[in-house]
Amino acid sequence: MWAIIGTWRMALEGVKLASEILENGGDAGDGVETCIQYIEDFPYFKSVGYGGLPNENMEVELDSAYMDGTTFDFGACGAVKNVKNPISLARKLSTLDANNFLVGSGADAYARKNGFEIVNMLTDRAKIHYKNRIYEENKFKNKKELKPYLGHDTVGICALDSKNKIVAGTSTSGLFMKKAGRIGDSPVIGSGLYADSAVGAASATGLGEDLMKGCISYQIVVNMKNGMNPQDACQDAVKYLDDVLKKAKGKSGDLSVVAIDKYGNFGCATNIEGFSFVYASYNTPAQVYLTYNEAGITKYKLASQEWLDDYMNTRKAPLVKKYE
Amino acid sequence: MWAIIGTWRMALEGVKLASEILENGGDAGDGVETCIQYIEDFPYFKSVGYGGLPNENMEVELDSAYMDGTTFDFGACGAVKNVKNPISLARKLSTLDANNFLVGSGADAYARKNGFEIVNMLTDRAKIHYKNRIYEENKFKNKKELKPYLGHDTVGICALDSKNKIVAGTSTSGLFMKKAGRIGDSPVIGSGLYADSAVGAASATGLGEDLMKGCISYQIVVNMKNGMNPQDACQDAVKYLDDVLKKAKGKSGDLSVVAIDKYGNFGCATNIEGFSFVYASYNTPAQVYLTYNEAGITKYKLASQEWLDDYMNTRKAPLVKKYE
Repeated sequence: MWAIIGTWRMALEGVKLASEILENGGDAGDGVETCIQYIEDFPYFKSVGYGGLPNENMEVELDSAYMDGTTFDFGACGAVKNVKNPISLARKLSTLDANNFLVGSGADAYARKNGFEIVNMLTDRAKIHYKNRIYEENKFKNKKELKPYLGHDTVGICALDSKNKIVAGTSTSGLFMKKAGRIGDSPVIGSGLYADSAVGAASATGLGEDLMKGCISYQIVVNMKNGMNPQDACQDAVKYLDDVLKKAKGKSGDLSVVAIDKYGNFGCATNIEGFSFVYASYNTPAQVYLTYNEAGITKYKLASQEWLDDYMNTRKAPLVKKYE
Repeated sequence: MWAIIGTWRMALEGVKLASEILENGGDAGDGVETCIQYIEDFPYFKSVGYGGLPNENMEVELDSAYMDGTTFDFGACGAVKNVKNPISLARKLSTLDANNFLVGSGADAYARKNGFEIVNMLTDRAKIHYKNRIYEENKFKNKKELKPYLGHDTVGICALDSKNKIVAGTSTSGLFMKKAGRIGDSPVIGSGLYADSAVGAASATGLGEDLMKGCISYQIVVNMKNGMNPQDACQDAVKYLDDVLKKAKGKSGDLSVVAIDKYGNFGCATNIEGFSFVYASYNTPAQVYLTYNEAGITKYKLASQEWLDDYMNTRKAPLVKKYE
């Protein structure tokens, strides 16, 4: 038995690759790393890895984490530059006795010293997005609010392998136009991801600053430990945090989560429109699901071929330079 | 009614300053910031702020966080250099809409741009500690394990004010000889600290890498929300994580925690010898308590004058240069 779930449509190709590994009795860690590497490398996903959108200084800064639910070992990197595969760096850091969470130039130095592939992660497309944004902000004289990406964002993957090991991983370029050095929930254990092979795993995407306020991935795993199925565990955690933030501050940021339990069952919940995810297991092919809201509860359905075609066309559509 | 608790003996003078603020009806955030600023500024505490021990490159890198339990706003900085008061930077970051968690050179740049006092945080005493360590490692040809400090470490403060607001804050220079860019639990919401004014707050100190594996501060607050008193909430969280890590890996790092609830009651727990803490409230003067283990349960007693004198003498004792 094996299962894997990932946030957003963009996880599809990576989940398919991981499914082959898991189907052949491979390790959940290998599945998670292979899956996320693919997404990091694909240039048209503008919120993860190569092609990710830059910070306010037009520098791509990347966050990633990896957690092994059997040993509780984790590794994480925050605000790293020019590292081709942050997920591989995070996984490597998870093998150290200490120093598991490295950020900034220290993380860059570790990556270089340890032979990680160093690549300029800023693509021409990302530069156009950046310059368009600057142009708009100058033209309209108001600085836009920093928001999660429409239709995709952090990739978060949870995988269960045939030896009952559960691993979670995340990767993101973070909020477009963020301040230099900003890290979100993705590299933070308990917020962006959490894994416990005796229970299950969860991962989150959305506004990192709000997701961290509720340690949402840890809370989902606690919910499952307390007997909830993954769907109820996700729904409860999102609703609770959304309510708490609205009560405290009058608003809540984007909160979307996925989870699997130790039996390979999955759950998802979101407080936004348009959240999608990918799930595959030993008896279910890798497919994209779209969420929708029904009386305050997150439901999901298979994405249509039309939706899938439109998604990739939108990602690859030529960009118009507004600034020339 | 007000109350404040802080990790380690080193919190004493700061807690006294905060007590005056709280006694006069002041804000819990002001109490926490004032308390931690004092500890950061005191040069003889070698694990926090000025005088903190450096990383492997002989650079002092500092971590801090601040969380408001009423709004759930938080700010955090990781691996910042030369910022005189990281807690003030963290508090300032907690007021932003996003970009609440800044690390590395981005955090440094933000601090400079926003008028924070920039100071060389590496003292002559810290240099001697560093050079002694290098000398020993070269002489004995084995690299020492990275361990938390003996008798002091991260300062973690939880305060309740007379308007029922609860705030938590942390500050540390992290593990001595850590890799550049390493951050521990202290700047991580849920691990180093968590605050919810409707419930209570908690803060942790010890081996950050292990504390993060259990989101221990969040778990303590969850325990209190589920009806445990602060003492049981702390004890349960430490025992659970200690057991989980020993089962998974055969060992557990240093885990020490303090907490208060919304009524000002406090709790503490640890899996080490020699943990101390400071508590004060509207009807209790600021005093240092020492923990001890009784049949697996953390108990505490007031520190004797002899212990207190010895503590400060040890901190201020002249250092012997081994390398000359």
